[in-house]
Amino acid sequence: MRSPDAGAGAAAAARVAALATPAGALGQLGDLGVWLGACQGACPPRPLHDVRLVVFAGDHGVAAHGVSAYPAAVTGAMVSTVRAGRAGVSALAAAHGVTVRLVDVAVDSDEQGPGKVRRGSGAIHLEDALLPGETEAALALGRRVAAEEVAAGADLLLSGDLGIGNTTPAAALVAAGLGLPAAEVVGRGTGVDDAGLARKTDVVAAALARAGGRLDDPVETLTAVGSADLAAATGYLLGAAEAGVPVLLDGLMAVACALTADRIAPGAAAWCAAGHRSTEPGQSLALEKLGLEPVLDLGMRLGEGSGAVAAVPVLRSAVAVLRDVALLADVLPQ
Amino acid sequence: MRSPDAGAGAAAAARVAALATPAGALGQLGDLGVWLGACQGACPPRPLHDVRLVVFAGDHGVAAHGVSAYPAAVTGAMVSTVRAGRAGVSALAAAHGVTVRLVDVAVDSDEQGPGKVRRGSGAIHLEDALLPGETEAALALGRRVAAEEVAAGADLLLSGDLGIGNTTPAAALVAAGLGLPAAEVVGRGTGVDDAGLARKTDVVAAALARAGGRLDDPVETLTAVGSADLAAATGYLLGAAEAGVPVLLDGLMAVACALTADRIAPGAAAWCAAGHRSTEPGQSLALEKLGLEPVLDLGMRLGEGSGAVAAVPVLRSAVAVLRDVALLADVLPQ
Repeated sequence: MRSPDAGAGAAAAARVAALATPAGALGQLGDLGVWLGACQGACPPRPLHDVRLVVFAGDHGVAAHGVSAYPAAVTGAMVSTVRAGRAGVSALAAAHGVTVRLVDVAVDSDEQGPGKVRRGSGAIHLEDALLPGETEAALALGRRVAAEEVAAGADLLLSGDLGIGNTTPAAALVAAGLGLPAAEVVGRGTGVDDAGLARKTDVVAAALARAGGRLDDPVETLTAVGSADLAAATGYLLGAAEAGVPVLLDGLMAVACALTADRIAPGAAAWCAAGHRSTEPGQSLALEKLGLEPVLDLGMRLGEGSGAVAAVPVLRSAVAVLRDVALLADVLPQ
Repeated sequence: MRSPDAGAGAAAAARVAALATPAGALGQLGDLGVWLGACQGACPPRPLHDVRLVVFAGDHGVAAHGVSAYPAAVTGAMVSTVRAGRAGVSALAAAHGVTVRLVDVAVDSDEQGPGKVRRGSGAIHLEDALLPGETEAALALGRRVAAEEVAAGADLLLSGDLGIGNTTPAAALVAAGLGLPAAEVVGRGTGVDDAGLARKTDVVAAALARAGGRLDDPVETLTAVGSADLAAATGYLLGAAEAGVPVLLDGLMAVACALTADRIAPGAAAWCAAGHRSTEPGQSLALEKLGLEPVLDLGMRLGEGSGAVAAVPVLRSAVAVLRDVALLADVLPQ
């Protein structure tokens, strides 16, 4: 994968150092401004006017096996709620001028939208999540969606997720990517109790054992222990990086997909920043591996891309500081 | 001090619990929405359209004693930069629709604005910061400024600071309020080296020793080891609380003043939220004492109110979620 523009990044870092602020006083705002400058190949970075969230929705066979606090039927209800503009992420997106596009990749419904890969993905402790051709189709769908959003003018892309049970395959992707056992990466998702957490850990452990050496290959990992929606989100991140557009990640699902994208095309994660730290342990582990420091840490675990949307104003703050603050040389007493 | 409206807070908490989001999934966004609802006496809380930052500026006698990485002359230069709309906080405020008012409380300049208390405050390790009448005048100035901003329509007030050397008296206020020694509360401010940090610690320790038992009284504390600008900021926080308008605090100075305001009028800090965690140890200690969890933690140490302004969109996120998200009962499959 091509890299962000190191020259523009260096120029942005030099500009941060020359601003009428004490050295280092901007903290992470300065770092984010440098990253955006590098991604855009511009110093100072351009404003983030056109920010677009894509929510990848799908159902998961594991949801019938006690890994979630909610029944699988909630997925369809939440798809409708997002489409009606009444979900958590809808409110945040409206507040911060972010557009929301929901892509039904694999919801277990009769609906047959363009590019829909299947109805639900396999129960990964018992069977592969996908057929190999479905993995390729989902990756291609995500790439196509990214290309469409870029062509429509996106200055920044956000990645979100929707689907009861999706933290289970996402944890499996993290475990596969980091070589960690299930117990270290599995969290409570939307809020399972101790018994649910134990079942979920068993499901991920069984899935990892079933897949075995196939986990060495990131695309095989998606096929065996992932899902269609996670494969599509992975393709979306690859497409954004290929187009040279920066991405702000949400929680566990987005970060698991960034980890997977970076396994498929090393360097892809350089185009990503982390919107927030979720409460899922697997997300923090994957962020650390990718060298990403979350913008927000509000204890959120809502999904839908909500943590990424909530972090957008901080990226706009970083751009504003690099663009609009005076240089120290211009304001110091002579 | 009167309290925020517990009934409205309880109604807001019930609304958070009833939203179409998993229980607890909003994390701190939910808590902030509940706090705003209580402060406004409204559920859901009203939008934060009119947000106003007041930056209290002043010089400090200690600046001539090696406690800062910058010379005192920088204060005047930064006052001009804020007024010209070219400072760090100016860029952030413009990005997020926050108005900025700078009040020259005690800058060491010929300028004589309305309410200006004096030219610089005393070097607190050698002399009182203020004459008793000046402390009262500064407190009254801050209260008046808060009343003016409330009358002009503020939905939310922010407190910021400007002045070389101001982290030294602010650390002394924290030490006095928490009964801690200088070494535990003093930090590097705009970036002093180890020798500067040692000098700064000695200055605070000497100031605390000089003031002795007077530190038991919060107004005497401002007179002895504070400053005119910090007294004005304290009055501003008291005025906001008296008017029932919530305040978003910035870094060490604002939080030291909130601690002092809460000593003067117990309960005043209930009207405050913390915009960000600064790099100053005294700020974190005072936040803990006040039970305030910062919204952002970006390693910023710019002052000027910048951390509070950067956090405003998160409060707006909290309001948006409480106002605009569907209720679970309306979206769940029947």
